[in-house]
Amino acid sequence: MTDTVKVYTHNFLLTAAQCNAQRELAPAMLVQQIIEVSTEHADAIGVGFKNLAADGNLWVLSRIAIEMKRYPKLLENYSLSTWVESYNRHFSERNFEIRGSGGEIIGYARTIWVAINMKTRRPANLSGFDFLADVVSDKVCPIDRQDKIRPAETPQMCHSYTFQVSDIDVNRHVNSSRYVELIINQMDLETYDNFFVARFEIEYRRESHFGDEVEVCSSFSSDGKSLVSTINHGDTTVCLARTVTLPR
Amino acid sequence: MTDTVKVYTHNFLLTAAQCNAQRELAPAMLVQQIIEVSTEHADAIGVGFKNLAADGNLWVLSRIAIEMKRYPKLLENYSLSTWVESYNRHFSERNFEIRGSGGEIIGYARTIWVAINMKTRRPANLSGFDFLADVVSDKVCPIDRQDKIRPAETPQMCHSYTFQVSDIDVNRHVNSSRYVELIINQMDLETYDNFFVARFEIEYRRESHFGDEVEVCSSFSSDGKSLVSTINHGDTTVCLARTVTLPR
Repeated sequence: MTDTVKVYTHNFLLTAAQCNAQRELAPAMLVQQIIEVSTEHADAIGVGFKNLAADGNLWVLSRIAIEMKRYPKLLENYSLSTWVESYNRHFSERNFEIRGSGGEIIGYARTIWVAINMKTRRPANLSGFDFLADVVSDKVCPIDRQDKIRPAETPQMCHSYTFQVSDIDVNRHVNSSRYVELIINQMDLETYDNFFVARFEIEYRRESHFGDEVEVCSSFSSDGKSLVSTINHGDTTVCLARTVTLPR
Repeated sequence: MTDTVKVYTHNFLLTAAQCNAQRELAPAMLVQQIIEVSTEHADAIGVGFKNLAADGNLWVLSRIAIEMKRYPKLLENYSLSTWVESYNRHFSERNFEIRGSGGEIIGYARTIWVAINMKTRRPANLSGFDFLADVVSDKVCPIDRQDKIRPAETPQMCHSYTFQVSDIDVNRHVNSSRYVELIINQMDLETYDNFFVARFEIEYRRESHFGDEVEVCSSFSSDGKSLVSTINHGDTTVCLARTVTLPR
Protein backbone atom coordinates (compact mmCIF):
# COMPACT_ATOMS: atom_id res chain seq x y z
CA MET A 1 0.00 0.00 0.00
CA THR A 2 1.40 3.37 -1.00
CA ASP A 3 1.95 6.38 1.18
CA THR A 4 -0.56 8.30 -0.95
CA VAL A 5 -3.31 6.11 0.43
CA LYS A 6 -2.01 6.17 3.99
CA VAL A 7 -2.19 9.96 3.95
CA TYR A 8 -5.07 11.23 1.81
CA THR A 9 -5.26 14.92 0.84
CA HIS A 10 -8.21 16.98 -0.42
CA ASN A 11 -7.61 20.51 -1.74
CA PHE A 12 -10.18 23.25 -1.15
CA LEU A 13 -10.70 26.87 -2.18
CA LEU A 14 -12.68 29.03 0.24
CA THR A 15 -15.27 30.85 -1.88
CA ALA A 16 -17.07 34.01 -0.76
CA ALA A 17 -20.38 32.14 -0.44
CA GLN A 18 -18.75 29.72 2.05
CA CYS A 19 -17.13 32.37 4.30
CA ASN A 20 -18.34 33.50 7.69
CA ALA A 21 -18.57 37.14 8.84
CA GLN A 22 -14.83 37.15 9.63
CA ARG A 23 -14.13 36.14 6.02
CA GLU A 24 -12.78 32.79 7.17
CA LEU A 25 -13.74 29.14 7.12
CA ALA A 26 -16.25 28.71 9.96
CA PRO A 27 -15.48 25.96 12.52
CA ALA A 28 -18.76 24.21 11.58
CA MET A 29 -17.79 24.17 7.90
CA LEU A 30 -14.37 22.75 8.86
CA VAL A 31 -16.18 19.96 10.73
CA GLN A 32 -18.31 19.27 7.64
CA GLN A 33 -15.18 19.07 5.49
CA ILE A 34 -13.46 16.79 8.04
CA ILE A 35 -16.45 14.44 7.71
CA GLU A 36 -16.36 14.63 3.89
CA VAL A 37 -12.64 13.92 3.69
CA SER A 38 -12.94 11.07 6.21
CA THR A 39 -15.63 9.53 4.02
CA GLU A 40 -13.50 9.87 0.88
CA HIS A 41 -10.45 8.29 2.50
CA ALA A 42 -12.47 5.49 4.11
CA ASP A 43 -13.97 4.72 0.67
CA ALA A 44 -10.49 4.74 -0.89
CA ILE A 45 -9.09 2.22 1.60
CA GLY A 46 -12.10 -0.12 1.51
CA VAL A 47 -13.76 0.74 4.83
CA GLY A 48 -16.30 3.25 3.54
CA PHE A 49 -19.99 3.40 4.37
CA LYS A 50 -20.78 0.90 1.61
CA ASN A 51 -18.22 -1.62 2.93
CA LEU A 52 -19.62 -1.40 6.45
CA ALA A 53 -23.24 -1.41 5.24
CA ALA A 54 -22.63 -4.80 3.63
CA ASP A 55 -22.42 -6.18 7.19
CA GLY A 56 -25.27 -3.97 8.47
CA ASN A 57 -22.83 -1.60 10.17
CA LEU A 58 -22.19 2.11 10.02
CA TRP A 59 -19.52 4.63 11.10
CA VAL A 60 -20.66 7.16 13.69
CA LEU A 61 -18.58 10.20 14.53
CA SER A 62 -17.98 10.16 18.27
CA ARG A 63 -15.44 12.91 19.03
CA ILE A 64 -13.56 15.73 17.36
CA ALA A 65 -10.76 17.92 18.72
CA ILE A 66 -9.52 20.74 16.50
CA GLU A 67 -6.61 23.12 17.11
CA MET A 68 -6.05 26.00 14.71
CA LYS A 69 -3.36 28.71 14.57
CA ARG A 70 -5.65 30.48 12.12
CA TYR A 71 -8.52 29.56 9.76
CA PRO A 72 -8.37 29.50 5.94
CA LYS A 73 -9.27 32.93 4.53
CA LEU A 74 -11.51 34.19 1.71
CA LEU A 75 -10.24 32.86 -1.64
CA GLU A 76 -7.42 30.91 0.03
CA ASN A 77 -6.41 27.51 -1.31
CA TYR A 78 -6.05 25.15 1.62
CA SER A 79 -5.91 21.42 2.18
CA LEU A 80 -7.01 18.75 4.61
CA SER A 81 -4.79 15.67 4.88
CA THR A 82 -6.05 12.68 6.82
CA TRP A 83 -4.61 9.41 8.11
CA VAL A 84 -5.60 6.59 10.45
CA GLU A 85 -3.61 6.68 13.69
CA SER A 86 -5.08 3.51 15.15
CA TYR A 87 -8.05 1.21 14.94
CA ASN A 88 -9.46 -1.72 16.86
CA ARG A 89 -12.58 -3.84 16.60
CA HIS A 90 -14.86 -1.03 17.72
CA PHE A 91 -13.42 2.33 16.77
CA SER A 92 -10.86 4.15 14.72
CA GLU A 93 -8.72 7.24 15.43
CA ARG A 94 -8.38 9.44 12.35
CA ASN A 95 -6.27 12.60 12.35
CA PHE A 96 -6.05 15.67 10.14
CA GLU A 97 -3.46 18.25 9.18
CA ILE A 98 -4.75 21.52 7.71
CA ARG A 99 -2.42 23.55 5.49
CA GLY A 100 -2.77 27.10 4.16
CA SER A 101 -2.05 28.39 0.66
CA GLY A 102 1.70 28.58 1.24
CA GLY A 103 1.76 24.95 2.38
CA GLU A 104 2.26 25.99 6.00
CA ILE A 105 0.50 23.96 8.67
CA ILE A 106 -2.33 26.04 10.19
CA GLY A 107 -4.01 23.39 12.30
CA TYR A 108 -4.67 19.79 13.28
CA ALA A 109 -7.69 17.72 14.18
CA ARG A 110 -8.30 14.41 15.90
CA THR A 111 -11.47 12.40 15.32
CA ILE A 112 -12.81 9.18 16.79
CA TRP A 113 -15.22 7.08 14.74
CA VAL A 114 -17.22 4.23 16.25
CA ALA A 115 -18.69 1.42 14.18
CA ILE A 116 -22.20 0.45 15.23
CA ASN A 117 -24.85 -1.93 13.99
CA MET A 118 -27.51 -0.05 12.00
CA LYS A 119 -30.43 -1.80 13.67
CA THR A 120 -29.32 -2.46 17.23
CA ARG A 121 -27.23 0.76 17.46
CA ARG A 122 -24.80 -1.40 19.51
CA PRO A 123 -21.02 -1.48 18.84
CA ALA A 124 -20.16 -3.44 15.71
CA ASN A 125 -17.31 -5.90 15.44
CA LEU A 126 -14.80 -4.81 12.80
CA SER A 127 -12.58 -7.88 13.04
CA GLY A 128 -13.15 -8.48 9.31
CA PHE A 129 -11.24 -5.29 8.55
CA ASP A 130 -7.82 -6.44 9.75
CA PHE A 131 -6.29 -5.20 6.49
CA LEU A 132 -6.62 -1.74 8.07
CA ALA A 133 -3.31 -2.51 9.83
CA ASP A 134 -1.66 -1.72 6.48
CA VAL A 135 -3.06 1.81 6.29
CA VAL A 136 -2.23 2.90 9.82
CA SER A 137 0.23 5.76 9.52
CA ASP A 138 2.86 6.84 12.05
CA LYS A 139 2.48 10.47 10.99
CA VAL A 140 2.42 12.64 14.12
CA CYS A 141 -0.60 14.66 15.25
CA PRO A 142 0.90 17.00 17.87
CA ILE A 143 -2.34 18.14 19.53
CA ASP A 144 -3.73 16.73 22.76
CA ARG A 145 -6.38 14.07 22.77
CA GLN A 146 -9.78 15.21 23.95
CA ASP A 147 -10.11 15.60 27.69
CA LYS A 148 -13.22 14.63 29.61
CA ILE A 149 -15.65 17.54 29.30
CA ARG A 150 -17.40 18.37 32.59
CA PRO A 151 -20.37 20.71 32.27
CA ALA A 152 -21.09 23.29 34.98
CA GLU A 153 -23.88 22.46 37.40
CA THR A 154 -25.41 25.90 36.93
CA PRO A 155 -24.84 27.15 33.39
CA GLN A 156 -24.30 30.87 32.77
CA MET A 157 -26.34 31.00 29.57
CA CYS A 158 -29.02 28.80 27.98
CA HIS A 159 -30.86 29.04 24.66
CA SER A 160 -33.53 26.67 23.41
CA TYR A 161 -33.74 25.54 19.82
CA THR A 162 -36.07 23.19 17.92
CA PHE A 163 -34.50 21.24 15.06
CA GLN A 164 -35.88 22.16 11.64
CA VAL A 165 -35.99 20.55 8.19
CA SER A 166 -32.74 22.24 7.17
CA ASP A 167 -30.88 20.73 10.16
CA ILE A 168 -31.48 17.10 9.20
CA ASP A 169 -28.89 15.05 7.31
CA VAL A 170 -28.78 12.08 4.97
CA ASN A 171 -29.25 9.67 7.93
CA ARG A 172 -32.37 11.52 9.19
CA HIS A 173 -30.45 12.80 12.24
CA VAL A 174 -29.31 16.31 13.03
CA ASN A 175 -26.25 17.19 10.94
CA SER A 176 -23.03 16.89 13.01
CA SER A 177 -21.87 20.33 11.90
CA ARG A 178 -25.18 21.92 12.97
CA TYR A 179 -24.40 21.18 16.63
CA VAL A 180 -21.12 23.04 16.16
CA GLU A 181 -23.06 26.05 14.83
CA LEU A 182 -25.42 26.00 17.82
CA ILE A 183 -22.43 26.04 20.18
CA ILE A 184 -20.62 28.77 18.23
CA ASN A 185 -23.88 30.78 18.33
CA GLN A 186 -23.74 30.91 22.14
CA MET A 187 -21.46 33.94 21.73
CA ASP A 188 -22.10 37.09 19.68
CA LEU A 189 -20.62 38.38 16.44
CA GLU A 190 -18.35 40.91 18.16
CA THR A 191 -16.72 38.13 20.18
CA TYR A 192 -15.61 36.40 16.98
CA ASP A 193 -14.42 39.70 15.50
CA ASN A 194 -12.00 39.95 18.41
CA PHE A 195 -11.29 36.30 19.21
CA PHE A 196 -10.87 33.13 17.17
CA VAL A 197 -11.59 29.52 18.10
CA ALA A 198 -8.12 28.16 18.86
CA ARG A 199 -9.30 24.79 20.14
CA PHE A 200 -12.69 23.13 19.79
CA GLU A 201 -13.71 19.77 21.22
CA ILE A 202 -17.03 18.05 20.77
CA GLU A 203 -18.31 14.73 22.01
CA TYR A 204 -21.41 13.36 20.29
CA ARG A 205 -23.43 11.30 22.77
CA ARG A 206 -26.89 10.80 21.26
CA GLU A 207 -28.65 11.41 17.97
CA SER A 208 -31.24 14.18 17.63
CA HIS A 209 -34.18 14.22 15.24
CA PHE A 210 -36.50 16.62 13.45
CA GLY A 211 -38.69 18.51 15.92
CA ASP A 212 -36.55 17.78 19.01
CA GLU A 213 -36.38 20.84 21.24
CA VAL A 214 -32.98 21.12 22.89
CA GLU A 215 -31.36 23.42 25.44
CA VAL A 216 -27.91 24.74 24.57
CA CYS A 217 -26.23 25.75 27.83
CA SER A 218 -22.74 27.16 28.40
CA SER A 219 -20.42 28.32 31.16
CA PHE A 220 -16.96 29.80 31.20
CA SER A 221 -14.32 27.85 33.11
CA SER A 222 -13.07 29.44 36.36
CA ASP A 223 -9.93 30.71 34.59
CA GLY A 224 -12.12 32.19 31.81
CA LYS A 225 -10.06 30.43 29.16
CA SER A 226 -12.65 27.98 27.90
CA LEU A 227 -16.38 27.74 27.40
CA VAL A 228 -18.00 24.40 28.21
CA SER A 229 -21.32 23.77 26.45
CA THR A 230 -23.95 21.05 26.57
CA ILE A 231 -26.85 20.35 24.29
CA ASN A 232 -29.60 18.57 26.22
CA HIS A 233 -32.83 17.04 24.99
CA GLY A 234 -34.86 16.72 28.19
CA ASP A 235 -32.68 14.77 30.62
CA THR A 236 -30.50 13.36 27.84
CA THR A 237 -27.17 14.95 26.96
CA VAL A 238 -26.94 15.00 23.15
CA CYS A 239 -23.45 16.46 23.04
CA LEU A 240 -20.77 18.18 25.06
CA ALA A 241 -18.25 20.72 23.80
CA ARG A 242 -15.34 22.85 24.95
CA THR A 243 -14.34 26.02 23.08
CA VAL A 244 -11.05 27.84 23.71
CA THR A 245 -10.81 31.28 22.12
CA LEU A 246 -7.72 33.45 21.78
CA PRO A 247 -7.39 37.15 20.85
CA ARG A 248 -6.84 37.75 17.14
CA MET B 1 -15.04 36.06 -27.08
CA THR B 2 -15.56 32.31 -27.07
CA ASP B 3 -18.71 30.39 -26.37
CA THR B 4 -17.00 28.79 -23.36
CA VAL B 5 -17.03 32.15 -21.63
CA LYS B 6 -20.57 33.03 -22.73
CA VAL B 7 -21.82 29.83 -21.10
CA TYR B 8 -19.80 28.91 -18.01
CA THR B 9 -20.15 25.45 -16.44
CA HIS B 10 -19.20 24.23 -12.96
CA ASN B 11 -19.32 20.49 -12.18
CA PHE B 12 -20.36 19.27 -8.75
CA LEU B 13 -20.58 15.98 -6.88
CA LEU B 14 -23.21 15.75 -4.15
CA THR B 15 -21.44 14.28 -1.13
CA ALA B 16 -23.25 12.65 1.80
CA ALA B 17 -22.31 15.53 4.11
CA GLN B 18 -24.06 17.98 1.75
CA CYS B 19 -27.34 16.03 1.36
CA ASN B 20 -30.63 16.81 2.99
CA ALA B 21 -32.92 14.25 4.66
CA GLN B 22 -34.31 13.23 1.26
CA ARG B 23 -30.74 12.43 0.10
CA GLU B 24 -30.88 15.27 -2.40
CA LEU B 25 -29.40 18.71 -2.93
CA ALA B 26 -31.45 21.05 -0.70
CA PRO B 27 -32.97 24.12 -2.42
CA ALA B 28 -30.91 26.39 -0.10
CA MET B 29 -27.69 24.66 -1.12
CA LEU B 30 -28.67 25.05 -4.79
CA VAL B 31 -29.11 28.79 -4.16
CA GLN B 32 -25.66 28.92 -2.56
CA GLN B 33 -24.14 27.17 -5.56
CA ILE B 34 -26.00 29.51 -7.96
CA ILE B 35 -24.35 32.42 -6.13
CA GLU B 36 -20.92 30.75 -6.25
CA VAL B 37 -21.14 29.96 -9.96
CA SER B 38 -22.43 33.50 -10.71
CA THR B 39 -19.40 34.89 -8.89
CA GLU B 40 -17.00 32.65 -10.80
CA HIS B 41 -18.47 33.56 -14.19
CA ALA B 42 -18.62 37.29 -13.37
CA ASP B 43 -14.92 37.11 -12.39
CA ALA B 44 -14.09 35.28 -15.63
CA ILE B 45 -15.75 37.92 -17.82
CA GLY B 46 -14.33 40.92 -15.95
CA VAL B 47 -17.39 42.05 -13.99
CA GLY B 48 -16.64 40.29 -10.72
CA PHE B 49 -16.80 41.76 -7.24
CA LYS B 50 -13.23 43.11 -7.56
CA ASN B 51 -14.03 44.89 -10.86
CA LEU B 52 -17.10 46.57 -9.37
CA ALA B 53 -15.35 47.35 -6.07
CA ALA B 54 -12.79 49.40 -8.01
CA ASP B 55 -15.63 51.89 -8.64
CA GLY B 56 -17.07 51.50 -5.13
CA ASN B 57 -19.90 49.30 -6.40
CA LEU B 58 -21.18 45.85 -5.54
CA TRP B 59 -23.51 43.19 -7.00
CA VAL B 60 -26.57 42.43 -4.90
CA LEU B 61 -28.78 39.42 -5.61
CA SER B 62 -32.31 40.70 -6.08
CA ARG B 63 -34.41 37.77 -7.34
CA ILE B 64 -34.20 34.07 -8.01
CA ALA B 65 -36.70 31.75 -9.71
CA ILE B 66 -35.86 28.04 -9.81
CA GLU B 67 -37.76 25.24 -11.55
CA MET B 68 -36.65 21.66 -11.01
CA LYS B 69 -37.93 18.36 -12.44
CA ARG B 70 -35.89 16.70 -9.71
CA TYR B 71 -32.90 17.55 -7.51
CA PRO B 72 -29.39 16.07 -7.77
CA LYS B 73 -29.13 12.92 -5.65
CA LEU B 74 -26.58 11.53 -3.17
CA LEU B 75 -23.25 10.89 -4.97
CA GLU B 76 -24.61 12.23 -8.28
CA ASN B 77 -22.36 14.25 -10.57
CA TYR B 78 -24.31 17.31 -11.71
CA SER B 79 -23.54 20.65 -13.28
CA LEU B 80 -24.66 24.26 -13.23
CA SER B 81 -24.22 26.22 -16.46
CA THR B 82 -24.75 29.96 -16.41
CA TRP B 83 -25.04 32.76 -18.96
CA VAL B 84 -26.03 36.43 -19.09
CA GLU B 85 -29.39 36.91 -20.79
CA SER B 86 -29.37 40.71 -20.63
CA TYR B 87 -27.86 43.61 -18.78
CA ASN B 88 -28.33 47.36 -18.56
CA ARG B 89 -26.79 50.15 -16.52
CA HIS B 90 -28.42 48.98 -13.30
CA PHE B 91 -28.99 45.25 -13.36
CA SER B 92 -28.18 41.98 -15.06
CA GLU B 93 -30.29 38.90 -15.82
CA ARG B 94 -28.29 35.69 -15.35
CA ASN B 95 -29.77 32.26 -16.08
CA PHE B 96 -28.84 28.70 -15.16
CA GLU B 97 -29.31 25.23 -16.56
CA ILE B 98 -28.87 22.31 -14.16
CA ARG B 99 -27.95 18.90 -15.58
CA GLY B 100 -27.88 15.49 -13.92
CA SER B 101 -25.24 12.78 -14.17
CA GLY B 102 -26.48 11.53 -17.54
CA GLY B 103 -26.29 15.04 -18.98
CA GLU B 104 -30.08 15.40 -18.93
CA ILE B 105 -31.53 18.78 -18.01
CA ILE B 106 -33.15 18.57 -14.56
CA GLY B 107 -33.88 22.25 -13.97
CA TYR B 108 -33.41 25.92 -14.73
CA ALA B 109 -32.99 29.09 -12.74
CA ARG B 110 -33.31 32.81 -13.42
CA THR B 111 -31.51 35.39 -11.28
CA ILE B 112 -31.50 39.19 -11.26
CA TRP B 113 -28.46 41.01 -9.90
CA VAL B 114 -28.52 44.73 -9.14
CA ALA B 115 -25.36 46.83 -8.93
CA ILE B 116 -25.38 49.29 -6.03
CA ASN B 117 -22.93 51.76 -4.56
CA MET B 118 -21.28 50.31 -1.43
CA LYS B 119 -21.72 53.47 0.63
CA THR B 120 -24.95 55.05 -0.55
CA ARG B 121 -26.66 51.64 -1.22
CA ARG B 122 -28.22 53.43 -4.25
CA PRO B 123 -28.22 51.93 -7.77
CA ALA B 124 -24.80 52.09 -9.41
CA ASN B 125 -24.20 53.10 -13.01
CA LEU B 126 -22.60 50.26 -14.97
CA SER B 127 -22.13 52.20 -18.22
CA GLY B 128 -18.39 51.46 -18.01
CA PHE B 129 -19.15 47.77 -18.56
CA ASP B 130 -20.45 48.04 -22.11
CA PHE B 131 -18.15 45.17 -23.13
CA LEU B 132 -20.75 42.95 -21.45
CA ALA B 133 -22.67 43.14 -24.74
CA ASP B 134 -20.15 40.59 -26.03
CA VAL B 135 -20.98 38.00 -23.38
CA VAL B 136 -24.75 38.16 -23.63
CA SER B 137 -25.90 34.74 -24.79
CA ASP B 138 -29.07 33.90 -26.72
CA LYS B 139 -29.30 30.52 -24.99
CA VAL B 140 -32.93 29.91 -24.02
CA CYS B 141 -34.15 29.66 -20.42
CA PRO B 142 -37.63 28.17 -20.83
CA ILE B 143 -39.00 28.95 -17.35
CA ASP B 144 -41.24 31.91 -16.52
CA ARG B 145 -39.82 35.10 -15.12
CA GLN B 146 -40.72 35.77 -11.50
CA ASP B 147 -44.23 37.02 -10.96
CA LYS B 148 -45.13 39.67 -8.43
CA ILE B 149 -45.43 37.91 -5.05
CA ARG B 150 -48.45 39.09 -3.06
CA PRO B 151 -48.44 38.03 0.60
CA ALA B 152 -51.71 37.14 2.32
CA GLU B 153 -53.15 39.76 4.64
CA THR B 154 -53.67 37.17 7.38
CA PRO B 155 -50.94 34.51 7.24
CA GLN B 156 -51.77 30.92 8.18
CA MET B 157 -48.49 30.26 10.03
CA CYS B 158 -45.80 32.44 11.59
CA HIS B 159 -42.51 31.60 13.28
CA SER B 160 -40.06 34.06 14.79
CA TYR B 161 -36.32 33.71 14.44
CA THR B 162 -33.34 35.76 15.62
CA PHE B 163 -30.31 35.76 13.31
CA GLN B 164 -27.24 34.13 14.85
CA VAL B 165 -23.47 34.20 14.23
CA SER B 166 -23.69 31.21 11.86
CA ASP B 167 -26.25 33.03 9.65
CA ILE B 168 -23.99 35.97 8.76
CA ASP B 169 -22.00 36.08 5.53
CA VAL B 170 -18.82 37.66 4.20
CA ASN B 171 -20.61 41.03 3.79
CA ARG B 172 -21.87 41.04 7.41
CA HIS B 173 -25.46 40.45 6.24
CA VAL B 174 -27.62 37.37 6.57
CA ASN B 175 -26.55 34.75 4.03
CA SER B 176 -28.92 34.68 1.02
CA SER B 177 -29.30 30.91 1.26
CA ARG B 178 -30.25 31.13 4.95
CA TYR B 179 -33.52 32.91 4.06
CA VAL B 180 -34.30 29.98 1.75
CA GLU B 181 -33.79 27.58 4.68
CA LEU B 182 -36.10 29.61 6.91
CA ILE B 183 -38.82 29.46 4.23
CA ILE B 184 -38.30 25.74 3.57
CA ASN B 185 -38.50 25.22 7.36
CA GLN B 186 -42.09 26.52 7.39
CA MET B 187 -43.16 22.99 6.47
CA ASP B 188 -42.26 19.74 8.22
CA LEU B 189 -39.98 16.87 7.26
CA GLU B 190 -42.85 14.58 6.20
CA THR B 191 -44.04 17.17 3.68
CA TYR B 192 -40.68 17.01 1.89
CA ASP B 193 -40.68 13.21 2.05
CA ASN B 194 -43.88 13.28 0.00
CA PHE B 195 -43.47 16.46 -2.06
CA PHE B 196 -40.54 18.22 -3.73
CA VAL B 197 -40.04 21.91 -4.45
CA ALA B 198 -40.87 22.15 -8.15
CA ARG B 199 -40.66 25.94 -8.35
CA PHE B 200 -39.16 28.39 -5.87
CA GLU B 201 -39.13 32.17 -6.21
CA ILE B 202 -37.54 34.62 -3.82
CA GLU B 203 -37.29 38.39 -3.90
CA TYR B 204 -34.68 39.95 -1.62
CA ARG B 205 -35.89 43.39 -0.50
CA ARG B 206 -33.72 44.45 2.44
CA GLU B 207 -30.58 43.25 4.20
CA SER B 208 -30.78 41.65 7.66
CA HIS B 209 -28.08 41.72 10.30
CA PHE B 210 -26.86 39.78 13.32
CA GLY B 211 -29.40 39.90 16.14
CA ASP B 212 -32.38 40.98 13.98
CA GLU B 213 -35.52 39.18 15.08
CA VAL B 214 -37.74 38.38 12.10
CA GLU B 215 -41.17 36.86 11.59
CA VAL B 216 -41.44 34.19 8.91
CA CYS B 217 -45.10 34.01 7.83
CA SER B 218 -46.72 31.81 5.18
CA SER B 219 -50.08 31.10 3.58
CA PHE B 220 -51.24 28.64 0.98
CA SER B 221 -52.79 30.12 -2.15
CA SER B 222 -56.54 29.60 -2.59
CA ASP B 223 -55.90 26.74 -5.06
CA GLY B 224 -53.50 25.16 -2.53
CA LYS B 225 -50.79 24.90 -5.18
CA SER B 226 -48.32 27.40 -3.80
CA LEU B 227 -47.14 28.71 -0.46
CA VAL B 228 -46.42 32.44 -0.25
CA SER B 229 -44.00 33.45 2.51
CA THR B 230 -42.70 36.73 3.86
CA ILE B 231 -39.83 37.46 6.20
CA ASN B 232 -40.52 40.69 8.09
CA HIS B 233 -38.29 42.65 10.44
CA GLY B 234 -40.75 44.86 12.27
CA ASP B 235 -42.69 46.73 9.56
CA THR B 236 -40.02 46.07 6.94
CA THR B 237 -40.35 43.22 4.47
CA VAL B 238 -36.92 41.62 4.18
CA CYS B 239 -37.93 39.09 1.54
CA LEU B 240 -40.87 37.47 -0.21
CA ALA B 241 -41.03 33.94 -1.57
CA ARG B 242 -43.33 31.55 -3.41
CA THR B 243 -42.91 27.79 -3.13
CA VAL B 244 -44.69 25.34 -5.43
CA THR B 245 -44.47 21.69 -4.37
CA LEU B 246 -45.46 18.62 -6.38
CA PRO B 247 -45.96 15.01 -5.26
CA ARG B 248 -42.84 12.85 -5.63
